[in-house]
Amino acid sequence: MVGAGQLARMTHQAAISLGQSLRILADSPDDGAALVAADVVIGDYRSLPDLQAFASGCDVVTFDHEHVPSEHVAALAAGGVAVRPGAAALMHAQDKAVMRRRLTDLGAPGPDWAPIASADELAAFGERVGWPLVLKAARGGYDGKGVWVVSSPAEAAPVLSSGVPLLAEAKVPIARELAAVVARSPFGQGAAWPVVETVQQDGICVEVIAPAPGLAPERADEAQALALRIAASLGVVGVLAVELFESEDGRLLVNELAMRPHNSAHWTIEGARTSQFEQHLRAVLDYPLGATTPTAPVTVMANLLAGPDDVKPASIDERVHHCLARWPDVKIHLYGKGFRPGRKVGHVTALGASLVDVRERARAAADYLANGDPA
Amino acid sequence: MVGAGQLARMTHQAAISLGQSLRILADSPDDGAALVAADVVIGDYRSLPDLQAFASGCDVVTFDHEHVPSEHVAALAAGGVAVRPGAAALMHAQDKAVMRRRLTDLGAPGPDWAPIASADELAAFGERVGWPLVLKAARGGYDGKGVWVVSSPAEAAPVLSSGVPLLAEAKVPIARELAAVVARSPFGQGAAWPVVETVQQDGICVEVIAPAPGLAPERADEAQALALRIAASLGVVGVLAVELFESEDGRLLVNELAMRPHNSAHWTIEGARTSQFEQHLRAVLDYPLGATTPTAPVTVMANLLAGPDDVKPASIDERVHHCLARWPDVKIHLYGKGFRPGRKVGHVTALGASLVDVRERARAAADYLANGDPA
Repeated sequence: MVGAGQLARMTHQAAISLGQSLRILADSPDDGAALVAADVVIGDYRSLPDLQAFASGCDVVTFDHEHVPSEHVAALAAGGVAVRPGAAALMHAQDKAVMRRRLTDLGAPGPDWAPIASADELAAFGERVGWPLVLKAARGGYDGKGVWVVSSPAEAAPVLSSGVPLLAEAKVPIARELAAVVARSPFGQGAAWPVVETVQQDGICVEVIAPAPGLAPERADEAQALALRIAASLGVVGVLAVELFESEDGRLLVNELAMRPHNSAHWTIEGARTSQFEQHLRAVLDYPLGATTPTAPVTVMANLLAGPDDVKPASIDERVHHCLARWPDVKIHLYGKGFRPGRKVGHVTALGASLVDVRERARAAADYLANGDPA
Repeated sequence: MVGAGQLARMTHQAAISLGQSLRILADSPDDGAALVAADVVIGDYRSLPDLQAFASGCDVVTFDHEHVPSEHVAALAAGGVAVRPGAAALMHAQDKAVMRRRLTDLGAPGPDWAPIASADELAAFGERVGWPLVLKAARGGYDGKGVWVVSSPAEAAPVLSSGVPLLAEAKVPIARELAAVVARSPFGQGAAWPVVETVQQDGICVEVIAPAPGLAPERADEAQALALRIAASLGVVGVLAVELFESEDGRLLVNELAMRPHNSAHWTIEGARTSQFEQHLRAVLDYPLGATTPTAPVTVMANLLAGPDDVKPASIDERVHHCLARWPDVKIHLYGKGFRPGRKVGHVTALGASLVDVRERARAAADYLANGDPA
């Protein structure tokens, strides 16, 4: 796996059960996955020679992020390395303009959009869909970075002059965000987990509720079928997360694609018979996929976003201590990262029968780990 | 963790979630845990200097087997290393005569027993409890090794003359074997999982059924209370497995003690809210213990004992492939070991509502992985 963040860390955990040991390409020995895996190569994912040296001897190469240059992915494959997902599929998770064009061709629902190369093009698009609208960097954005809501071409001027390839999307009034996460094997087998609600704050996912509360069964089926169709059409191998908007008028619109284990499915570690990490491995190794059956009526995952530097008690170890005592059935996942304000350093998962109760436990546990005792 | 077998391997998996990385003392870089962990020290657990070098910088030292000489465990503690469980407790899992004497003092139920130093002592004990009886090496036995059923002092002559410290136990007519597995923290908190049935073949556990079918609630309570009392009386820190006989006349008798994660609780990885591996870490790190609530009405774990060398298909990878396709909700755990006939190389776990169905799936999956297609 190229990349050594928490996704590689949790994928390594799953690999151990399958009798495998994940080889990891890390920027630094202090990366979350590098701290816990036996077979770590330090190198630069932007360097083709580093990627080639890393891939030598691997049965298959996969990714914990989208940032490997697509020409390098293609070069690895041309050199005989099994790369999953492949460059042609991965491009749709790397470039939002490529993704929008392809989804439009497939007839998949999404906001009105256009590639934007000038202030004039933006003005024309705004004229057509209305202001404010959403301007996005085609590449490299995540967690709200590379996304700007603008009310006029003038307001967009600094972004337009930056030289970054852009696209614009109509700003759809949304009721909430959902995610349909599926996996697909090279053989073409597909498997879908229940559709979840992802709760966002300031553009960052803070909470995932499985299954999405109050989602009509036919709407959930529609979202799963859409995600499986995208996975098949694009030739995805591995996990595909389809981030969705549920619009105020009840439509589902594709927001983003990710082709790797995804934050919206961390709940599957405890909440589904097969976790997304095991499933991603099964898919890229061309093993049959596992059952996606939920293990509890409700599972809630809350991200642990590090609180301020003056949190009390100051020791995360002490906060873990109190957290485990207070919520003995909440599961903690720490990523081996230093706590810096706002940094995603772990998550917690709670399961049970009552949405209100499960959600309260997950949120309270994550809030205590992040922010400690009330000031 | 001293020792790098499957118990250390699975403990490392659990450590990752807690933000920890297990340092492992391995005999060889090919040991199951050494293949998957970042921090591996190669050394000899029978060497005090090796143990001291390994322990330097560890917050706490624990064990994946009982074979570290107890004087070395005591020496580490005397040198300021936090060793959990400590030498005084661990002795009861290392020496069956010490264990029997202590349990007799505690009034814990067990078979009639005596230390045996000569043929005359054996003859006198046999006279008292009847023949056949069970002769055991006080130290070093496991999986049926170091245990002999003998019908006369003459039959025991080769063992008696070997110089191995021995004890003898009355051979109790047993209906089945059970295990009560608990954990205890240094603070004194205790937690018990449901009592399980352990199904043995040729002295080796092949299957664990959780909870033990048809066990009366008051009998289960009695077993849990007994295990918690032994843990507290002996000052155990970490997981304590109390292997029990259920006699034909309905009594519970202690068979063996183990002070580490134990095969009889592998089912807890999927079948309980907190696995024995996470719980062992929580205990030795003096974190509060986790909930032991079952996640399904029935969980069955079946050990994977490698079949004959001519099994078909010959590739374990191919057998895993077919197994995952046939039983998409059975979870496989492989230990990174080579398949040699009879060797314990992994386990599988199935969960569900029906004992018959769950047991059938677990056994069939394990049998297929071990023995492949019927000849």
